[in-house]
Amino acid sequence: MNDHARTTGSTFIDASEQEMANAIRALAMDAVQKANSGHPGMPMGMADVATVLFNRFITIDPSRPDWPDRDRFVLSAGHGSMLQYALHHLVGYPDMPIGELQRFRQLGSRTAGHPEYGHALGIETTTGPLGQGIATAVGMALAERMLAARYGADLVDHYTYVIAGDGCLQEGISHEAIDLAGHLRLSKLIVLWDDNRISIDGPTSLATSMDQPARFGAAGWNVSAVDGHDAEAVAAAIEQARRSDKPSLIACRTVIGKGAPNLGGSEKTHGAPLGLAEIEATRANIGWTYPPFELPGTVMRAWRAVAIRGQAARTAWERRHQSTPQREAFDRAIAGEVPAAVFEALASFRSEHFEKATNVATRKASEMALSIINAATDLPVGGSADLTHSNLTITKDMGKIAPGTFAGRYVHYGIREHAMAAAMNGIALHGGFVPYGGTFLCFADYARGAMRLSALMGQRVVYVMTHDSIGLGEDGPTHQPIEHLAMLRATPNLNVFRPADIIETAECWELALKAKDRPSVLVLSRQNLPMLRTMAPGANRSARGAYLMREAVGRRDVTLVATGSEVEIARAAADLLHERHNVRAALVSMPCWELFEEQDSAYRAEVLGKAPRIAVEAAARMGWDRWIGERGDFVGMIGFGASAPATDLYRHFGITAEAIADAALAVTQKD
Amino acid sequence: MNDHARTTGSTFIDASEQEMANAIRALAMDAVQKANSGHPGMPMGMADVATVLFNRFITIDPSRPDWPDRDRFVLSAGHGSMLQYALHHLVGYPDMPIGELQRFRQLGSRTAGHPEYGHALGIETTTGPLGQGIATAVGMALAERMLAARYGADLVDHYTYVIAGDGCLQEGISHEAIDLAGHLRLSKLIVLWDDNRISIDGPTSLATSMDQPARFGAAGWNVSAVDGHDAEAVAAAIEQARRSDKPSLIACRTVIGKGAPNLGGSEKTHGAPLGLAEIEATRANIGWTYPPFELPGTVMRAWRAVAIRGQAARTAWERRHQSTPQREAFDRAIAGEVPAAVFEALASFRSEHFEKATNVATRKASEMALSIINAATDLPVGGSADLTHSNLTITKDMGKIAPGTFAGRYVHYGIREHAMAAAMNGIALHGGFVPYGGTFLCFADYARGAMRLSALMGQRVVYVMTHDSIGLGEDGPTHQPIEHLAMLRATPNLNVFRPADIIETAECWELALKAKDRPSVLVLSRQNLPMLRTMAPGANRSARGAYLMREAVGRRDVTLVATGSEVEIARAAADLLHERHNVRAALVSMPCWELFEEQDSAYRAEVLGKAPRIAVEAAARMGWDRWIGERGDFVGMIGFGASAPATDLYRHFGITAEAIADAALAVTQKD
Repeated sequence: MNDHARTTGSTFIDASEQEMANAIRALAMDAVQKANSGHPGMPMGMADVATVLFNRFITIDPSRPDWPDRDRFVLSAGHGSMLQYALHHLVGYPDMPIGELQRFRQLGSRTAGHPEYGHALGIETTTGPLGQGIATAVGMALAERMLAARYGADLVDHYTYVIAGDGCLQEGISHEAIDLAGHLRLSKLIVLWDDNRISIDGPTSLATSMDQPARFGAAGWNVSAVDGHDAEAVAAAIEQARRSDKPSLIACRTVIGKGAPNLGGSEKTHGAPLGLAEIEATRANIGWTYPPFELPGTVMRAWRAVAIRGQAARTAWERRHQSTPQREAFDRAIAGEVPAAVFEALASFRSEHFEKATNVATRKASEMALSIINAATDLPVGGSADLTHSNLTITKDMGKIAPGTFAGRYVHYGIREHAMAAAMNGIALHGGFVPYGGTFLCFADYARGAMRLSALMGQRVVYVMTHDSIGLGEDGPTHQPIEHLAMLRATPNLNVFRPADIIETAECWELALKAKDRPSVLVLSRQNLPMLRTMAPGANRSARGAYLMREAVGRRDVTLVATGSEVEIARAAADLLHERHNVRAALVSMPCWELFEEQDSAYRAEVLGKAPRIAVEAAARMGWDRWIGERGDFVGMIGFGASAPATDLYRHFGITAEAIADAALAVTQKD
Repeated sequence: MNDHARTTGSTFIDASEQEMANAIRALAMDAVQKANSGHPGMPMGMADVATVLFNRFITIDPSRPDWPDRDRFVLSAGHGSMLQYALHHLVGYPDMPIGELQRFRQLGSRTAGHPEYGHALGIETTTGPLGQGIATAVGMALAERMLAARYGADLVDHYTYVIAGDGCLQEGISHEAIDLAGHLRLSKLIVLWDDNRISIDGPTSLATSMDQPARFGAAGWNVSAVDGHDAEAVAAAIEQARRSDKPSLIACRTVIGKGAPNLGGSEKTHGAPLGLAEIEATRANIGWTYPPFELPGTVMRAWRAVAIRGQAARTAWERRHQSTPQREAFDRAIAGEVPAAVFEALASFRSEHFEKATNVATRKASEMALSIINAATDLPVGGSADLTHSNLTITKDMGKIAPGTFAGRYVHYGIREHAMAAAMNGIALHGGFVPYGGTFLCFADYARGAMRLSALMGQRVVYVMTHDSIGLGEDGPTHQPIEHLAMLRATPNLNVFRPADIIETAECWELALKAKDRPSVLVLSRQNLPMLRTMAPGANRSARGAYLMREAVGRRDVTLVATGSEVEIARAAADLLHERHNVRAALVSMPCWELFEEQDSAYRAEVLGKAPRIAVEAAARMGWDRWIGERGDFVGMIGFGASAPATDLYRHFGITAEAIADAALAVTQKD
């Protein structure tokens, strides 16, 4: 083994891979014991596989953890986080001293219970919710191929390695992800499956009889199966996987908690400390004589050789980078700065359609804005979960991503909302692109797990969610969102935009592109909507989250607050109130609650006013009381929708100018 | 073909299956055209398969659509709803006259855009969100086997047939569902896959290269592939599937929009009317000479023979039912009435633990309540998505469901939250059981699609969702719910219970079991909580959604409203306010918003009081302003959680008695 390691570029090895792996085992069991919380079984079981992977293959430079052409490593089985933290300490990430491992799972440490993107260098993605890692890695591997197609193998040529557990492969998202990866032939994606046959409840045979290798084979993957404690077998399988023209699954048969003489192989090692007695017995069993958190120099030197090998690769890459004419374009893509020309073009677009008073569905307005954006920058990578011509997410000359063909900019994600969201996370995390993808708003339900991670990781992922209310009509209640706006607005660090017309739609696209540390959801209508803007479109009014679209004439008796397709109806209600009842209503459009919350209280008070308020949205009331106040009321949906033409539904559910006016009259009389 | 149909029990056939199938084609294309909305392609493509299935195999009695031993038919590809409505009209469901087909997708019709459970007789489940049907059918097939294990094949012996499309099989939920079905060897589940190789964006080859038969084979299914327009081949495959000891996939190679001479085989037939010219051409092409919505007597008679065959089977079953000693027990199970003894036992349980002042985590309290419930009735079927000993969902002597063994009451659903939820829907819809299943609250995200359908269909499914806040501690933000309570509370027709102690937990279980037309979510703590109840536990206080747990002494300066684990903290704040500041705080526990909303305004006003209010919940604020009012404040979570011991997190995020007291002081001074 030493010989092999030498041949892959290490300069001096004086510890066997067995000892290197035992260092992981010791760190994992000791840190979990000290925290009195955590999962020792997986790190101990996969220590040998991880050692071979890092010692012989992975190219990373811990001194430059954001080097663009590094290999990506994703610990999909995120509960085994001590495996990652042990590796990070051993290869010498500067922010991972032994003290961090001693503070495993404590407040403010870098060693959170599950790997958290941004908490420590080298963590490529947040994992923990099972299956997210493998699906995110599909996006990373896709981004690698797309970036290589643009900038060539001199600049972009790296692998994406995943360690996945039984849970990752049982979750539905894994199906969507491996189908997509197999279809696109993402040959540089290599998944090492910890085939330990144990899950939390006990043996996996309690709940599954799946032939995983056959399943991956059916999805077009290259498959092998090895003894996960046989380093040479693991290495041979990885070698073979790197040469394959398909993505690869390596089933690594392992013993969970390997090394623990009494508990090894049992679910008892999965999610609880081994206990001091078993830890002592394990030390004896594996011949590890060092105290907790102490590592011998021989082992440390062996591990640091991984970093030295990576550093050499990185400096070689930098030389290539210096000499390539594509350097500046590549660097701009990696920086992810949307060019100013995009925003200038969007400003012209707003002026033009303000003049024309263009009436279109906001999904159509989004398509028109995207045409402008995609013509002015090639950062965006679009797609849809098989609703391209409903979501209107494709624009001219984008070029399609297809099996083995990665020069395009549009991904047919298939009927796979969850994998689409996770893949977009991976594309954003990888760098070089701004991913956006479409589905119906109602199917945010299917993508929830990954959308939450977009927000938690602060990634610029843009969700284009059309058919955003009962306005979609005949498809009925299964397709009509009710609680979805509340669900998304309640999610921290996520901007939810519901524009009312073509001007706001362009504004919201601009804001989504500018929000570099936050995902955005564009919530768009199926039905046509008039251009409502009255003020000249110079300033981006949506940027403050809500604004006075039309002040009341003379005095303000009531304020009507609405979003999206209901702003038009609220405007009609305001007219009706004035004409028939001499009640003066101000009209507020509120395309983004989150941005409005960020405004100072003076602005918010000015917009909301002191008169009673009626909020109007064809969705659940949840959350609106914040803006309505105690004297106001809400016009929207009480229960689920129904199947009928949209205009019938608005009437049936009482979301009409007349109903809004009645509600306004009731609160103004109360007043 | 006629000969064959005769041998399966039909009395008189005078139309060929080809004509029977063409009747479906005509009704589908004409109804979609009339509605100017809908999906003709799938009904036309699967008309032959559906005709063979219904004509030769399915045993249903349209005059008794709820006959317990009927075969179940699930149109998983729910957008093809006209296939189902055409079949229902043809076999003679009494609520499906031709007028309903003429009102396809109109307000108030039974023929909604997608099949809606409860809208028309014989619709076994709501479908439309792709993949839900196949996963729900797994629950139905499981319920059939469990009920057969209890009551014998004389009373329970039927098949579950599914028609699924490419979308159903691409969605992740299908993976979870087929893995579970294959593992459990649900041999009476037969899935007919509409292998038309077309999805909305175009050919499925845009997005998938999956070898579906190999994939199902890997999951332990019996697999065959046939020409979906060859009736004898389809029939032979169904015959073989019925004999298999595994669940079966029959890949039916079809032409979408079959019969349409110009558009057949194209995605253009998927989701839009064919147009009058193409409809005329189709009529000529298939030799269908009748005007829209008119059917010849020969065809109607042939179809009605299906009902006659089913009626004979149903009357035979009724004779068996009459003569079995198990009759009464079976009928009670099907009625789904929880025996009074359960509620008496729960009342005693509450008294006992009120006396003992038992301090336990509410997840533990749930386990204790379940022990009482499961001992007093065998209606509940429990399970967990691989978190049995965290969710505490198993009780003594439940017996486990295992491959081919269905006498038990506990299902290891595997790491498959979505399929668990859908399977529970299927179990509830099938009848005979009350399903409950556990996961962490955070992973409600993964189950969302099916949870929404529980609510939309009004099914008594109980979700046991533990580890309900930052109180879970070290696992960190990926596992700590923030927006989930808002997401669930915003969902119509769903009771969300967050009990504060053992007494409330037992009360909430009682309410969940009594809510026959609504799913419930029990949101439970990982951490221990004291018994808080002060009033004698005779009445179920949780039944009104919120109640005054402790009135303020003398006067009410402020009202503290809290749920679950934060009630204890709010109580400590009330004590602190009284002792240190002479501020008198009333304490309200609000375990269920939905039930509180249903109370009259006098009760709500009495509970909430006129003093300013502070709401306390370790979750997002979204929705709380409804209860807080304009003068109050909220103590809870602003952003995502963190990884640390729970007590550190509560301090770190400022959810403490001191912080609540400070907030109360601020609003009372403001007052």
